[in-house]
Amino acid sequence: MSNPKGILYLIPSLLGDAPVENSLPSYNRQIINSIDEYIVEDIRSARRFLIKAKIEKPIDSLTFHLYNEHSKNTDINSVVNGLMNGKNVGLISEAGCPSIADPGAEIIQFAHRNNIKVVPLVGPSSILMALIASGLNGQNFAFNGYLPKKEPDRIKALRQLETLVFQKNQTQIFIETPYRNDSLLKDILNACREETLLCIASDITLNSELIKTKTIRDWKNSKQSFNDHPAVFLLGKSAY
Amino acid sequence: MSNPKGILYLIPSLLGDAPVENSLPSYNRQIINSIDEYIVEDIRSARRFLIKAKIEKPIDSLTFHLYNEHSKNTDINSVVNGLMNGKNVGLISEAGCPSIADPGAEIIQFAHRNNIKVVPLVGPSSILMALIASGLNGQNFAFNGYLPKKEPDRIKALRQLETLVFQKNQTQIFIETPYRNDSLLKDILNACREETLLCIASDITLNSELIKTKTIRDWKNSKQSFNDHPAVFLLGKSAY
Repeated sequence: MSNPKGILYLIPSLLGDAPVENSLPSYNRQIINSIDEYIVEDIRSARRFLIKAKIEKPIDSLTFHLYNEHSKNTDINSVVNGLMNGKNVGLISEAGCPSIADPGAEIIQFAHRNNIKVVPLVGPSSILMALIASGLNGQNFAFNGYLPKKEPDRIKALRQLETLVFQKNQTQIFIETPYRNDSLLKDILNACREETLLCIASDITLNSELIKTKTIRDWKNSKQSFNDHPAVFLLGKSAY
Repeated sequence: MSNPKGILYLIPSLLGDAPVENSLPSYNRQIINSIDEYIVEDIRSARRFLIKAKIEKPIDSLTFHLYNEHSKNTDINSVVNGLMNGKNVGLISEAGCPSIADPGAEIIQFAHRNNIKVVPLVGPSSILMALIASGLNGQNFAFNGYLPKKEPDRIKALRQLETLVFQKNQTQIFIETPYRNDSLLKDILNACREETLLCIASDITLNSELIKTKTIRDWKNSKQSFNDHPAVFLLGKSAY
């Protein structure tokens, strides 16, 4: 008979310097205090997060396994050894929910293939919170990650996404590296129709949070800058 | 000069009978205790939720505006009167996050058009939690709501979604009315390829939570029933 296996807890971290009380249920702290082995994208920021989440165990008593975009599939076996041997393990991502835009997905697929129970905890997701607050169609939406970097490709991608907005009434969500937000915004304003709705949701859960849905026409008349503020962009159409 | 307007708080409710401490940050209770006007899909379940969330104000002192699929756009004006006149208002949906699969989106679009600040609170989203825990691609995914009810249309829709999985590496998410889950599962097993991954995530945040990603081949060999358990279905491909 095989040993009982551990549980893989998916532990959301904070978006930027948000207060823990605003972003995480108290149950998450209970889980954090019950386990002592983690798989993380970056050890320093994981330690910082656990301290901010008011972990009660001494940080130095914990085991951290690094797993990030530089890891190879072959690294998985060493990282999941504890899990396979009955230890509960927490997966922590850099910002927000694990595996949405990070390499944790491979760990989670491994867990499913090996009959390891996967338990997601509640936490902030900038994509989901942006979608909710945008007022754009939440019954049909797609998240596209990053768009192509070069201008002609990006304009083409934006026009394709706008076509999906009107053909399928499917809200289109995408992100950009924060220092390039204004450049992306310029391309959106060039590529899209005047009546298309654009939501920009920046600094979600922070004091500086700003979430605004306007027509492309109205965005053209506003002179806001979003550079260096993590933001989610959404294209959609009016519900009216 | 126009009066200052209120803030529209988007207040997630619980998924089924989950404990509040597992699903909501303590900040949400603070917000709930600071406002006394709500826009809700169903008044009875909103009251029940507020009591469960340990609201301190007497429930009978609160104002509830009903806004659901039977409401017309013309009803909005009466519902948002408080907001327009400086009152902070909470939008509560039936289960999980407002406006993802409910009529709240119209209220939120109204708020944006009228320069009312929209603030989303953190809470459980079955779609997002299912996606995270599935291990399927979270960098590109689409939520498709409900599929067509009739079998030939549904099989066709499932094949189209599966094509998107492989063409775009885009995880495809959809839901069904719980009493029809097994019928949907049967159609998925008929329509999709043996090596396609299917995740079924049911009873999320409840004690009976079950989240399992397996190939269609492996699902065919298991005899599980999901009828009457709220579930999210996801199609994706292996990360390997």
